[in-house]
Amino acid sequence: MPDIKLIEERRSHGGAQRVYSHWSDACLCTMTFSVFLPPQALDGHPCPTLTYLSGLTCSHANVMEKGEYREAAAHHGIIFICPDTSPRGDDVPDDDAYYSGKGAGYYLNATQPPYATHYNMERYITDELPNLICEHFVTSDSKDSIFGHSMGGHGALTLALKHPELYRSVSAFAPICNPMNSPWGTHAFSEYLGADRTTWRSSDTVALIEDGRRVEDILVDQGLGDDFLENQLKPDALQAACASAGISLTLRQHEGYDHSYYFISSFMKDHIAWHAKRLTR
Amino acid sequence: MPDIKLIEERRSHGGAQRVYSHWSDACLCTMTFSVFLPPQALDGHPCPTLTYLSGLTCSHANVMEKGEYREAAAHHGIIFICPDTSPRGDDVPDDDAYYSGKGAGYYLNATQPPYATHYNMERYITDELPNLICEHFVTSDSKDSIFGHSMGGHGALTLALKHPELYRSVSAFAPICNPMNSPWGTHAFSEYLGADRTTWRSSDTVALIEDGRRVEDILVDQGLGDDFLENQLKPDALQAACASAGISLTLRQHEGYDHSYYFISSFMKDHIAWHAKRLTR
Repeated sequence: MPDIKLIEERRSHGGAQRVYSHWSDACLCTMTFSVFLPPQALDGHPCPTLTYLSGLTCSHANVMEKGEYREAAAHHGIIFICPDTSPRGDDVPDDDAYYSGKGAGYYLNATQPPYATHYNMERYITDELPNLICEHFVTSDSKDSIFGHSMGGHGALTLALKHPELYRSVSAFAPICNPMNSPWGTHAFSEYLGADRTTWRSSDTVALIEDGRRVEDILVDQGLGDDFLENQLKPDALQAACASAGISLTLRQHEGYDHSYYFISSFMKDHIAWHAKRLTR
Repeated sequence: MPDIKLIEERRSHGGAQRVYSHWSDACLCTMTFSVFLPPQALDGHPCPTLTYLSGLTCSHANVMEKGEYREAAAHHGIIFICPDTSPRGDDVPDDDAYYSGKGAGYYLNATQPPYATHYNMERYITDELPNLICEHFVTSDSKDSIFGHSMGGHGALTLALKHPELYRSVSAFAPICNPMNSPWGTHAFSEYLGADRTTWRSSDTVALIEDGRRVEDILVDQGLGDDFLENQLKPDALQAACASAGISLTLRQHEGYDHSYYFISSFMKDHIAWHAKRLTR
């Protein structure tokens, strides 16, 4: 059994907020993730898992500190997992732009040098990490649910569309819906996947839906005071793609809310309830 | 009307999380505080206020980011105010120790040089700031309620005991109950109040109760995994003083919880409900 090392533990909301590090064979570096074990898990009951993918510049820590998820995760008895957003370490190539390189792994497997060696976040999130979770914690369901914010919303949506056998449900806060057609995404995809845009389609939510990938339903919350709304996030493109494909999209748009954790934390409880209903039915 | 300057505003939990700065006549420097206006206040309804005093090394920002108070404040319709913990600025004297000087004002009026000029946090919290709040926001009650964490719990308890006419209720997370007899407190009180320990009694919760000051009831939450419990916080001394004085103390002790916001956020909702009941009865 691959080892994980407990590096921090706090009691909170009746459960335990832990941080672990481990060697990653997918990313060829030490990776860090956090796990909130609800009271039910501490009492020895198997619990379902929900994975939250963070956005650009974040690590596992931002949502752990500001996401306000523990009360609802404790209420529903859900193990809440927060991975990092990229490989880390001195050997890992970086980019001067905050929107690619460290903190910006885009939850895909890079094919281009110098990124291809370490930037295998899709493999990490869909294969290595869930296997570690199943080995080290008592889970009640072989499937996970997944959601995230911004780049992490992109990650949740693309991974759920590409790997529907792994996830019971998917949702997102202010996701980058169509990175192929956004400045952040085109920069990152050029770096990670190269110049051939046809290879980008399997890492783009709108393109994946256009190309026939399906999930049953999606919950998205979007602030209308979000500075990145029109240029980077493009929920309209998601809405159009879902309408064409017959995917049930609940897109809630909130006057005045921005892109921050003040927004995310406001609707976190609703997302956890959304996943709880689908994890336990 | 003294001016306050809006420096940040975010929609959150149906309300508005704002940060203001203003010139302080009490502290003779620019001070910063945050205010959460619940949805009821944004709709123009007068709301009661609740002030949260933070602990050593903190500013207004720690609880604003990690305190998980907005959902409950929105539910109860409470204006939630978070002052800074000390005067700030290049002109303000500091101490190399983290437990006095900037970030460690102890919510008292210093009498000793070099601190006496700026370190007038008692006057700031009990007089200047509430007047600013009443002038700039529509409050429903001339009285405030007050609580806080660690040094801020000390602040809430001592200010409520000294100024019962100002507060409807008081509570604390892991308060420094008897700073006269703790290493942090004796260092800070020596710096701020001088060598004569009799002058320290009016800034010490246990001594204030021994000297006849009273509040009706107190809620305190304390983690039993708190590294500072025995040496610095001394809830047993508070318990003994309250028992002798006939003050109703609800002291809840929580196995495994530490001194962090993972602890505070776990019980924040209960404290807000405690104050809401007393603010609206």
